[in-house]
Amino acid sequence: MKINNLNKELLLVRKLLKNEIIEEEIISDLYDYIFKSSGKQIRARLSLLTSSIDKRKGEKRLRLAAIIELLHTATLVHDDVVDSSAIRRGNASVNSIWTNSHSVLIGDYIYSKAFMLMVALNDMKILKELSDATNDISKGELIQLDSINNIKVDLSYLLKISYFKTGRLFEAAAKSGAILAGGERDYIKHSTNFSKNLGVLFQIKDDLLDYQIDSHSGKPNFQDIKEKKITYPFYFAYTNASSKERRDLKDFLDCESINNEKLYELVSKLGGLEKTENLAISFLHKAEISAYSIKNKIVKDEMLNLLHKSLNRKK
Amino acid sequence: MKINNLNKELLLVRKLLKNEIIEEEIISDLYDYIFKSSGKQIRARLSLLTSSIDKRKGEKRLRLAAIIELLHTATLVHDDVVDSSAIRRGNASVNSIWTNSHSVLIGDYIYSKAFMLMVALNDMKILKELSDATNDISKGELIQLDSINNIKVDLSYLLKISYFKTGRLFEAAAKSGAILAGGERDYIKHSTNFSKNLGVLFQIKDDLLDYQIDSHSGKPNFQDIKEKKITYPFYFAYTNASSKERRDLKDFLDCESINNEKLYELVSKLGGLEKTENLAISFLHKAEISAYSIKNKIVKDEMLNLLHKSLNRKK
Repeated sequence: MKINNLNKELLLVRKLLKNEIIEEEIISDLYDYIFKSSGKQIRARLSLLTSSIDKRKGEKRLRLAAIIELLHTATLVHDDVVDSSAIRRGNASVNSIWTNSHSVLIGDYIYSKAFMLMVALNDMKILKELSDATNDISKGELIQLDSINNIKVDLSYLLKISYFKTGRLFEAAAKSGAILAGGERDYIKHSTNFSKNLGVLFQIKDDLLDYQIDSHSGKPNFQDIKEKKITYPFYFAYTNASSKERRDLKDFLDCESINNEKLYELVSKLGGLEKTENLAISFLHKAEISAYSIKNKIVKDEMLNLLHKSLNRKK
Repeated sequence: MKINNLNKELLLVRKLLKNEIIEEEIISDLYDYIFKSSGKQIRARLSLLTSSIDKRKGEKRLRLAAIIELLHTATLVHDDVVDSSAIRRGNASVNSIWTNSHSVLIGDYIYSKAFMLMVALNDMKILKELSDATNDISKGELIQLDSINNIKVDLSYLLKISYFKTGRLFEAAAKSGAILAGGERDYIKHSTNFSKNLGVLFQIKDDLLDYQIDSHSGKPNFQDIKEKKITYPFYFAYTNASSKERRDLKDFLDCESINNEKLYELVSKLGGLEKTENLAISFLHKAEISAYSIKNKIVKDEMLNLLHKSLNRKK
């Protein structure tokens, strides 16, 4: 499985999604809209990668990757209601063009479509992993909602949110792929651990990118703080701050319109960005250990490639 | 299976729900809130009823009924965002006390919990029926959303919405119960048809109750028209109206504050209520035919009981 082949397969996954989901006219309008900008498809890629050790599962592998992509898309669509986002993946979000109602219902439609396709895979272990993961993701979102504007969150709380919200689907994508391919126990274990840590790293990097001045990321910068979300850069800065600086940081949290440059400067001065970068690197190391335990060279190399790309990405 | 026993079993279902769902503290607060007023549990009742022909499936029967109740509750919670409802089942709705975000996420949590419990039932036929039904329900909601403020909806469109939104889960509840109990082909078929038609009747009656002056129903009256929803009473009245009366009816649809008495009077004068009642009776007849085809006397009698209660209910 060359990387080139993985990219080809991701195109097939998109084709499959288009053919599986556009039966209802009302949904096809939304479909074009939602999938226009497809993101990195890193979760689908992980599932294709770990399932690639068994080529006979061809069609099922694509279907599994499509399911993973649907689950992820459903959470994004519902996130837009939760975040009241006007922008998603660089484009206007569903609920800013249609209504909150559309976001809720189209999200439900996509979720349930994913479950239908899961059931059709006819593998109880995969069904269990994916339904557990979906539940954990919603738990993560609820925990995050509870942490909004809460200056008392600690590092373990933030890591829990990152795992449930992001790491969990990375993990489930890799695990279900490995199960589908009939991987051995160790292969499943290392793939799972690798992907879980990659997912947390991915989220930490996302939080870090949100604190950059230049707009390279798909979403507008300093969005988290506008939504009163304490993320790693803010958390580390706050931990390191004097009483006066803590009051200044709290003011940013309460403020209606934020001066990006000033916030960046303060968080940066207090080591918030550097510590976040270091935390990301620590997850890179954890994930590397798992990747190096994978015997299949092609899978291992692509895992390491994904890992370094995720850490070094600019958006 | 006496009716008395069914009521006892419904209490066990509620206990099971409480024990299965309150592991996360953040969710338990919402749980008490959502399940405080439990509604009629008619869907759970249907699944307990059709599965009652095989008593050995004791625990699984309760679990299936709990799953049905969870699926229904999840749609209610998401409906509150869609309808922007302030009241649900006579109490304030989740999103009027918490936020839209809570409604979306708690709905997702309940859906995914239902899927986890479904997977644990370990029956592919039931999984297929329930995941298909969940998808159809979301389709129904999307179709309804598309019909808001649309004076051109016809009867077949309204019936399609009633089936997808309401009949579909009644159908799935009965069908999965019958499958669980290992019912014969004919038993499954008649149970399914009965419940589908009962569900449509239930929705027609709901729409009719919304057009009553006295507040007996759990929700405030004339809510549908306030949400710009064309339902049966309005549709039949409009079909029967003169040009002048059509303009008056349209005015109600555009109006911000509605004079309930005047709307009631006009819709009633134009036969909207009577025709809706007759439509409900026609579905009672369809459902009766299926009920009479059921050989098991206890199941048949309770079906007929549910049918007449549904038609004659005051709320």
